[in-house]
Amino acid sequence: MKIVTIGRAFGSGGREIGRRVAEALHYDYYDSEIISNIAKHTELAEEYVRKVVDHEAHQLYPITIARTMGSHNPSLQMSIDIYKAQCDVIQAMAEKSNCVIVGRCADCILRDFSPFKIFVYATMEERVRRCKERNPNQYRNDREWRKAIERVDASRARYYEFFTNATWGDKLHYDVCLNTSNCNIKEVSQKLADLAELVLSDRA
Amino acid sequence: MKIVTIGRAFGSGGREIGRRVAEALHYDYYDSEIISNIAKHTELAEEYVRKVVDHEAHQLYPITIARTMGSHNPSLQMSIDIYKAQCDVIQAMAEKSNCVIVGRCADCILRDFSPFKIFVYATMEERVRRCKERNPNQYRNDREWRKAIERVDASRARYYEFFTNATWGDKLHYDVCLNTSNCNIKEVSQKLADLAELVLSDRA
Repeated sequence: MKIVTIGRAFGSGGREIGRRVAEALHYDYYDSEIISNIAKHTELAEEYVRKVVDHEAHQLYPITIARTMGSHNPSLQMSIDIYKAQCDVIQAMAEKSNCVIVGRCADCILRDFSPFKIFVYATMEERVRRCKERNPNQYRNDREWRKAIERVDASRARYYEFFTNATWGDKLHYDVCLNTSNCNIKEVSQKLADLAELVLSDRA
Repeated sequence: MKIVTIGRAFGSGGREIGRRVAEALHYDYYDSEIISNIAKHTELAEEYVRKVVDHEAHQLYPITIARTMGSHNPSLQMSIDIYKAQCDVIQAMAEKSNCVIVGRCADCILRDFSPFKIFVYATMEERVRRCKERNPNQYRNDREWRKAIERVDASRARYYEFFTNATWGDKLHYDVCLNTSNCNIKEVSQKLADLAELVLSDRA
């Protein structure tokens, strides 16, 4: 199967790019289905799974401590169990059809599929602008927005590094990194899809 | 004018990509012309200019010291004068025609042209493999090759940061970063050219 994975800095438009690249390539696109499938798999409530997978459950543990704590800490153990289910669900999706998966450590989970790995990022100003456009009243000012964005990034990085042992956002880990600050996401997604198709057909 | 700049980790194929992107876009491609034009401009020997521009002349100064030393140090002052000539030469090239420029801080020097800024990189293994292919007998083993590659990267980073105040290779500073480790450079250059053309026509 041909797989495209997309890591993304919060607010940089990674999800939109994922959807558009999938459309352009006629690949399946998985997003919220991942959460609901993990919930089915583990018989846990979807909302709970979402919180864990979106890194709200074990934000407070520094990686080095959390690693050794696993077996003595039920909530962390639960995160680890959910991550295992996440691996199973994402593996199953990849085995079923060509697909695009945004986030969720899919690049590492699917490494045996040699996915085309994209990382999407943008300047902080641009990310604040995009986020405010979607949720104008969520924070009072740009400073609060910046802090919120940094919190999400830090939490993604921690989760990713905890489970994959790789550095989130480190360009060496991706095939291509795209800065969305000064481009038209719709048009650029098509070019990115062309690039993914080319590289994946060489790897096949 | 439309400008593409290419920063590159040593041995990652950035120069080949530059040449191919220029070919695909029918843009001028500047490489050794930059050195010979600086030499004409400054009335210095080409070989000397090449040494300075390729960072062999002031490798030993840490940036913080070198910055304050400039006026008391003739060899550093010469580097600064050559950099000024480099700026003039690159500006003149950009004003003359659409072009692709590899390295030489062109992304910063030409920031007013809103260039499409590419950074090319690859894994260390891949870079050693590429370098050995070109110069099989230059070093005795892979460890020596790795050290040599790291030295060139460090020197590029120091030069870039000294003159531009920006971090060499930091993805936020580029529009797109491409990992050449697992791709066919010839084919990928065409896709990169398509992407550059799209973004530059939006910016025009």
